[in-house]
Amino acid sequence: MVSPLQQTYGQRALKQANPAAKLLLETMERKKSNLAVSMDVSKTKDFLAIIDVVGPFTHIDILEDFEYGLIHQLQDLSKKHDFMIFEDRKFADIGNTVVLQYSSGVHKIASWSHITNAHPVPGPSIIAGLSSIGLPLGRGLLLLAEMSTKGALTTGVYTEQAVRMARASRDFVIGFIAQRRMEGVGLAQGEVPDRDEDFLILTPGVGLHSQGDAMGQQYRTPKEVVSDSGCDVIIVGRGIYGTDLSLTDAIADRAKQYMAEGWEAYLQRIV
Amino acid sequence: MVSPLQQTYGQRALKQANPAAKLLLETMERKKSNLAVSMDVSKTKDFLAIIDVVGPFTHIDILEDFEYGLIHQLQDLSKKHDFMIFEDRKFADIGNTVVLQYSSGVHKIASWSHITNAHPVPGPSIIAGLSSIGLPLGRGLLLLAEMSTKGALTTGVYTEQAVRMARASRDFVIGFIAQRRMEGVGLAQGEVPDRDEDFLILTPGVGLHSQGDAMGQQYRTPKEVVSDSGCDVIIVGRGIYGTDLSLTDAIADRAKQYMAEGWEAYLQRIV
Repeated sequence: MVSPLQQTYGQRALKQANPAAKLLLETMERKKSNLAVSMDVSKTKDFLAIIDVVGPFTHIDILEDFEYGLIHQLQDLSKKHDFMIFEDRKFADIGNTVVLQYSSGVHKIASWSHITNAHPVPGPSIIAGLSSIGLPLGRGLLLLAEMSTKGALTTGVYTEQAVRMARASRDFVIGFIAQRRMEGVGLAQGEVPDRDEDFLILTPGVGLHSQGDAMGQQYRTPKEVVSDSGCDVIIVGRGIYGTDLSLTDAIADRAKQYMAEGWEAYLQRIV
Repeated sequence: MVSPLQQTYGQRALKQANPAAKLLLETMERKKSNLAVSMDVSKTKDFLAIIDVVGPFTHIDILEDFEYGLIHQLQDLSKKHDFMIFEDRKFADIGNTVVLQYSSGVHKIASWSHITNAHPVPGPSIIAGLSSIGLPLGRGLLLLAEMSTKGALTTGVYTEQAVRMARASRDFVIGFIAQRRMEGVGLAQGEVPDRDEDFLILTPGVGLHSQGDAMGQQYRTPKEVVSDSGCDVIIVGRGIYGTDLSLTDAIADRAKQYMAEGWEAYLQRIV
């Protein structure tokens, strides 16, 4: 068995049982892109303009002029540009509550977001709750096993427990938000590793130049993240859309640069 | 210095610097109630009907027919019934993102919710981000130091780190979602405890009879929570509004029962 590190996204797609995981890997292979653009903007106009240029990764709860009709526009763009939608909701409540937050509210995330994510902090009940809604719809879940902020509590036993929780729900949990590969992490003494284990690793805190922001975010380059640490998808936000959201050409240029660097790092890795 | 355990809510209100903490303790003393009702319902009609009966604690992101006008109705009810609003948002993202989630989006939580809460998992940046919005508005923050669900990762060093983070931001962090008192928790070797330390402890997972639900929630009685463990506020959801939201008389009766038991447990404690 070859490690996920040396396999292509396309090879790994063939072995995924979860439809969202399969689709993500196929899309990355087809588009030659492992870039997810994090859309932390608060106006629908900017949101749509930038997505039309770069493809998305959403924080729908930031849009102050959200109306459900936006979802149809988002889905149209998703087809036009062949991208998947990942609402970065970071669910973090008990099972009964996340069921409602995921399926209901004004945003109805489960009905349109192929992938979402959750903190493992409430214990396995959060996965049970989200899975009861998302699995029948073919959705996939990422657990936040690590965060890239300074002083994050996602270390040691916390990360190991997150991986154990994922391993117990592989039909719905497709991987992690993390800074490194997670296969084999958190195995109990004497537990036999599954040599076919293959988690998707999506990684925030990626920048070409930046060293961080004033609020504790820390950055690494695409090469460090994908080639050195073996992560699968780079998540980039402000590094791409910058501070002036009207400069869509510059935004598109930066997205292309990240896309090229991310893909180059991947090609180096699978050699 | 008398421990917060033996002081009245009114005595403790006098020493709070944060206006939301002060108002909460004053309101509890005046209303003789340490009950927060958790409103996990998805229709505005039910939401308003139940709040009109019992007073609230909100999950605004569950309301599928949310329109901002609801906030004005909520604020009117808050004045009419003399209650505070606590949006149980469980923020759990990096500083830059929570700034937008707290101030913006369709819900604009900071503009109307006296108190909200956050997971400490991203590290101190989440407090810095939320505080930059909430502190100028006189809001207060609770950190989730413990959760009541089975298999929660909020144990040991995680909880200690949460308390340290709170201690470093006492102007904005007024206390914890937790199952016990937190004064003195997480002190470094040789660090001198502040004998005036006084955190508000709000506690979910409270039931008069229930033993738990199918999704990992676990329950304790008001006496166990307030009198034995020294917590300040009992948070009750389904135990009060039950399964038939149209039975408002029964809902009001159950709320009164929890209110009476919670207050009785408090009176036993301060003797």
